[in-house]
Amino acid sequence: MTASMESMESPISITRRETAGQPPLTAELHRLYDGMERGLLVPLWTEIGDLMPVSPVSAARPHRWSWTALMAMARQAGRLVPVGRGGERRALALANPGLGGRPFATPTLWAAVQYLNAGEHAPVHRHTQNAFRFVVEGEGVWTVVNGDPVAMRRGDFLPQAGWNWHGHLNLSEAPMAWIDGLDIPFSYQIESTFFEYGPDSVDAQETPDRSRSERLWGHPGLQPVTQVAPTASSPLLAYRWEVTDRALDEQLRLEDEGHPVTLAPGHAAVRYVDPSTGGDVLSTVRAEFHRLRPDTATPARRAVGSSVYQVFEGTASVTVGDARWDVERGDLFVVPSWQALTVTTGEGVDLFTYSDAPIFERLGRFRSETAGGAER
Amino acid sequence: MTASMESMESPISITRRETAGQPPLTAELHRLYDGMERGLLVPLWTEIGDLMPVSPVSAARPHRWSWTALMAMARQAGRLVPVGRGGERRALALANPGLGGRPFATPTLWAAVQYLNAGEHAPVHRHTQNAFRFVVEGEGVWTVVNGDPVAMRRGDFLPQAGWNWHGHLNLSEAPMAWIDGLDIPFSYQIESTFFEYGPDSVDAQETPDRSRSERLWGHPGLQPVTQVAPTASSPLLAYRWEVTDRALDEQLRLEDEGHPVTLAPGHAAVRYVDPSTGGDVLSTVRAEFHRLRPDTATPARRAVGSSVYQVFEGTASVTVGDARWDVERGDLFVVPSWQALTVTTGEGVDLFTYSDAPIFERLGRFRSETAGGAER
Amino acid sequence: MTASMESMESPISITRRETAGQPPLTAELHRLYDGMERGLLVPLWTEIGDLMPVSPVSAARPHRWSWTALMAMARQAGRLVPVGRGGERRALALANPGLGGRPFATPTLWAAVQYLNAGEHAPVHRHTQNAFRFVVEGEGVWTVVNGDPVAMRRGDFLPQAGWNWHGHLNLSEAPMAWIDGLDIPFSYQIESTFFEYGPDSVDAQETPDRSRSERLWGHPGLQPVTQVAPTASSPLLAYRWEVTDRALDEQLRLEDEGHPVTLAPGHAAVRYVDPSTGGDVLSTVRAEFHRLRPDTATPARRAVGSSVYQVFEGTASVTVGDARWDVERGDLFVVPSWQALTVTTGEGVDLFTYSDAPIFERLGRFRSETAGGAER
Amino acid sequence: MTASMESMESPISITRRETAGQPPLTAELHRLYDGMERGLLVPLWTEIGDLMPVSPVSAARPHRWSWTALMAMARQAGRLVPVGRGGERRALALANPGLGGRPFATPTLWAAVQYLNAGEHAPVHRHTQNAFRFVVEGEGVWTVVNGDPVAMRRGDFLPQAGWNWHGHLNLSEAPMAWIDGLDIPFSYQIESTFFEYGPDSVDAQETPDRSRSERLWGHPGLQPVTQVAPTASSPLLAYRWEVTDRALDEQLRLEDEGHPVTLAPGHAAVRYVDPSTGGDVLSTVRAEFHRLRPDTATPARRAVGSSVYQVFEGTASVTVGDARWDVERGDLFVVPSWQALTVTTGEGVDLFTYSDAPIFERLGRFRSETAGGAER
Repeated sequence: MTASMESMESPISITRRETAGQPPLTAELHRLYDGMERGLLVPLWTEIGDLMPVSPVSAARPHRWSWTALMAMARQAGRLVPVGRGGERRALALANPGLGGRPFATPTLWAAVQYLNAGEHAPVHRHTQNAFRFVVEGEGVWTVVNGDPVAMRRGDFLPQAGWNWHGHLNLSEAPMAWIDGLDIPFSYQIESTFFEYGPDSVDAQETPDRSRSERLWGHPGLQPVTQVAPTASSPLLAYRWEVTDRALDEQLRLEDEGHPVTLAPGHAAVRYVDPSTGGDVLSTVRAEFHRLRPDTATPARRAVGSSVYQVFEGTASVTVGDARWDVERGDLFVVPSWQALTVTTGEGVDLFTYSDAPIFERLGRFRSETAGGAER
Repeated sequence: MTASMESMESPISITRRETAGQPPLTAELHRLYDGMERGLLVPLWTEIGDLMPVSPVSAARPHRWSWTALMAMARQAGRLVPVGRGGERRALALANPGLGGRPFATPTLWAAVQYLNAGEHAPVHRHTQNAFRFVVEGEGVWTVVNGDPVAMRRGDFLPQAGWNWHGHLNLSEAPMAWIDGLDIPFSYQIESTFFEYGPDSVDAQETPDRSRSERLWGHPGLQPVTQVAPTASSPLLAYRWEVTDRALDEQLRLEDEGHPVTLAPGHAAVRYVDPSTGGDVLSTVRAEFHRLRPDTATPARRAVGSSVYQVFEGTASVTVGDARWDVERGDLFVVPSWQALTVTTGEGVDLFTYSDAPIFERLGRFRSETAGGAER
Repeated sequence: MTASMESMESPISITRRETAGQPPLTAELHRLYDGMERGLLVPLWTEIGDLMPVSPVSAARPHRWSWTALMAMARQAGRLVPVGRGGERRALALANPGLGGRPFATPTLWAAVQYLNAGEHAPVHRHTQNAFRFVVEGEGVWTVVNGDPVAMRRGDFLPQAGWNWHGHLNLSEAPMAWIDGLDIPFSYQIESTFFEYGPDSVDAQETPDRSRSERLWGHPGLQPVTQVAPTASSPLLAYRWEVTDRALDEQLRLEDEGHPVTLAPGHAAVRYVDPSTGGDVLSTVRAEFHRLRPDTATPARRAVGSSVYQVFEGTASVTVGDARWDVERGDLFVVPSWQALTVTTGEGVDLFTYSDAPIFERLGRFRSETAGGAER
Repeated sequence: MTASMESMESPISITRRETAGQPPLTAELHRLYDGMERGLLVPLWTEIGDLMPVSPVSAARPHRWSWTALMAMARQAGRLVPVGRGGERRALALANPGLGGRPFATPTLWAAVQYLNAGEHAPVHRHTQNAFRFVVEGEGVWTVVNGDPVAMRRGDFLPQAGWNWHGHLNLSEAPMAWIDGLDIPFSYQIESTFFEYGPDSVDAQETPDRSRSERLWGHPGLQPVTQVAPTASSPLLAYRWEVTDRALDEQLRLEDEGHPVTLAPGHAAVRYVDPSTGGDVLSTVRAEFHRLRPDTATPARRAVGSSVYQVFEGTASVTVGDARWDVERGDLFVVPSWQALTVTTGEGVDLFTYSDAPIFERLGRFRSETAGGAER
């Protein structure tokens, strides 16, 4: 599967078509194109339509994965595939049908279900890819980050910025699954990945209810005045469900009281941020949680870059470009670049989502557009 | 050629090998893998070696293109292929032999020779991709940027930040060629490209010696106190050879006088920057000019991200990873991510180079390493 | 009292002393000095010792104000002086004995006790000076900030960034007092103050337990994804005692568990920050809360800039420069620029403090020094 | 003169007036005020009019100093007062008549004429105050900054950021004078000054035409790619007249050609910036050069903060607040905070100016207003 990316010579092939804007394909021109191919050259004029479209054309396709089906596969893998050094993680990645068979949910984002049986360890390692975990159901697993054990429970968001040591262990009596989000496809394409092995098993028999990071950083508006140098990534390792739920609930109550604090009527939304900067929780990944009231419809919105959504609770009817699905708890779907998304609720829905927006914002390339009121 | 990127379903295929860290390929496991493929899922444990290597493994290969050969092709194209709306530019792009036959010099960078006959116009357009031109020989072409005509002459560097209108016209009696550098492959992979047509021909019969941008911004340490809002990109549209040459020359003279201002003994280097910020001239592209004295050898250095070099004057012996070439005026070569580069001179060399380093720096991913003294 | 600052001509007087580095005071030199005075000129050479000392020499003096004495005065003022338009606030400001009789706690900082009787209103106004309130005892007052009522209770810190409308009302049956901290002296010296009157009384008969700002922004690591433009100052208007207390307590527990998260052994400290940036809560004022265990002594530390401390609970023995006091609940003291502070506890102490450090940091002028380990 | 700032107790005195908004001065209230004075307390309500005016009321007064008169004094000082260790500099500072007889041109800015006889040295020292020199006439002096000799000639602007070693020497056959601008009053008020002696004389017998800093950094849009860490202040130590003159001339020519690049019709202006950041050349001082065509009048403009102007060439009629003067070559005048400035030319004028604007911008306090079109 990885052959095309291995370091073997690929034959160069120039698109030869007599379409508008192209010169007639004379014998002389064919000879020039043959020579260019041998010389490892390709004309702009034959490829410009593909390379420089009027607006983003995504290779990725809108797609939905059913949580029930995913969990069935994950459970089977739990039975058949051990977790250990080398394979590292029992993770099943979403493979977008437009992306060449690779385990890429979108051209930049990885999304996988990870599954850990009772008593299992996922060995310690670190990598430059940014990661996070989000828990749609279950509990009992601890991620140990640089020695700090962090419990994982339904609704929790757990960022894992690049180059921090981490392993997982399941201290409960039952298997547990969650989703892993990373920037693996992006890091892979730009060829910037480092990886290092740590201990084979996780050394944490203490499993406190709250991680040290939360005890130190989980106080709104307060920072420790320590002599410690600032870190490159969020010092807060768990964003607990109780907090997220309360923040969303308050937005909707404030709306009820007449204050325009929601993203749109009936639509509350919070962004996970690094408390030491107020910026996105990871340098390449934006993560948010959205709550829509019953009988709410979002206007069509499209943005540069791609995103992944998971239904946390409730149901909704969703359109992405030309696709349309009904989604329910645990279902995942992807929104390719510049394809319009709408969400319509019956009984209301809670949605977790992440995207690659910080990449575009940091490079001055972000654009978005909402029906009935453009933003950039 | 673009078929694989078109929006058709790609079959998912899981790598099935019984190597270290992999579970035995039992019939049951084969059935699980079959099911996963149908469900658009791929395991991490079978792909991790490819996706998360210990250090960057580039699909791109070190390669050199001879200027003589490039120019021969460009001249033929000048004879056979008209320039006009649709094809937009008579540009021949370097196609790295490791990148699937696509016109990508590296996974992020585009490098092309553009060629314009006497009297020709290249029509006006704009795009979100960042671009620049660098002139290794010749003169007579004017790039008109948002109505400001900018002459192009040997040694000049001309940035063209995204979403500015621009066209070219050749007012001389002879053809002229130069290189175009862009972030087309990167923009393509992250699917963030917008493009818009302007007038079919360039409206500039005035061709002053210096552009308005230079007259307003080309004064070291001074900025106009205008009411104009700051722009997103460098307001200076031409970095002239005389200035670059003098800056390099001064570095070497200062070194002769005992001041350690060069990058390394015998190795002067300047970076092109946006005078309004002091930062890289383009948000995704770093551009520099290096001058090595005769009989100078650079220590092996490798960096995350890729770069393209063009010999401006002189000759050198170059190694990139396992490749080794003698290069001379006009020759272009590419350095893939994390492959070590050395340059050794006989009579000295002047090198123009550009890279994708700002992408990595802005996202907190840059690393580099120099033999005999690590940097990060 | 303000005569010297009124816009009348001050006679110029040159210091005439025959000290080291000074020329002999000949008749001719006296005549030159006389001429310079008439011409509104002063030599550097006669004043340099005062103007450019080797390290900061503060005009301010270390001083302590007893809370008991302050409150006695405040109560008397509550009986004799009405609150209303014109006088605006019943506030008694600390006047440092070294600062010319002006109501300046330090050359940059204002510190005052404000006192509001049951049923009173302090009229609405706004000003460019940054302000905050800190409550050492009592409750029952609401500050209404741009229409958002914010309750004030013991231990709460309430920032009031410049140019926001605000008024106070006492809805309880008893008087209430608190301290106001502002950058009035700094703003006065640099002559940057604007002031505007709002309504004469505060229109807020609803007094919810939590302000809208807390409901929207008081969730650690979460930000509302609203369309609202970012504000210039902290969107969080109340930092509640429960949160501060818990954060300090956790630091000391983590220390007990072996993690070096405190500022120094036995010394926990948190800084109040703007959750939208992670930076200081006000652009000119840093505010922190420190907790020292029993039998703890801080090393002598001095810093550029001045600070004010208030004992929130407990007692301590304090030295500032050559001064030494025992302090108890409510007592206030000032630390002038570059004078060393030590705090020694018997039964432990909780200290609120604020300083002008952001001014120096933003202008590249901050320095500090701790005995037994310099920082800058 | 410095008595009031020495660390002796100042008596506290409360303003006792029965004006609007003040309580009746009963015997009881007098007793309260007496007690407050003894307790080092001052009411806000008696002082608020002075401390918190509706808009900035400057203690400084508009004033002009005639260059002829200044130079006469400077020459006399050159005859009577030696330059050496202790007095450090033969500098005559402008003393604003509203600022208590102190050598402060404005509440934040120092402006002085410095005078050095042929063959004299001004000893090496460094201080945290930011400084610059501007030369209205003459040449022959070299400022040696951290060992780099920098020639000073008519029209040159030479920044001297805080904490860099510097001394001056006059290698010519004639005396030379120039103006020194510093933030001494601001640094003094905020009590942040450090000072250190270096060698008693300047060790630079080489006096090249261009400093090393110019040879390394004086190339528009180019930066050296050295391993040297970034410095806190502008690496460019001389901004030469030829460059400034050309930049202004080009702005006016571009205006003639129909391009709206000037600050206002007939009014060209450049700001001196740090080429490594594009920001103000000093963290506390903004410096600019303005050129007005003949028969040009600027609209009234007022800004928070103060500024000093020096006529470089030509004449003008100037109003500042209620003052009005005709000014000519070398004359200096000050503009206090929030007082409106207009300049009207007959034959045109070249003006050098500096202000404290970066202080206000960095602290979020800047405002300005131009008649016929407000800015903030």
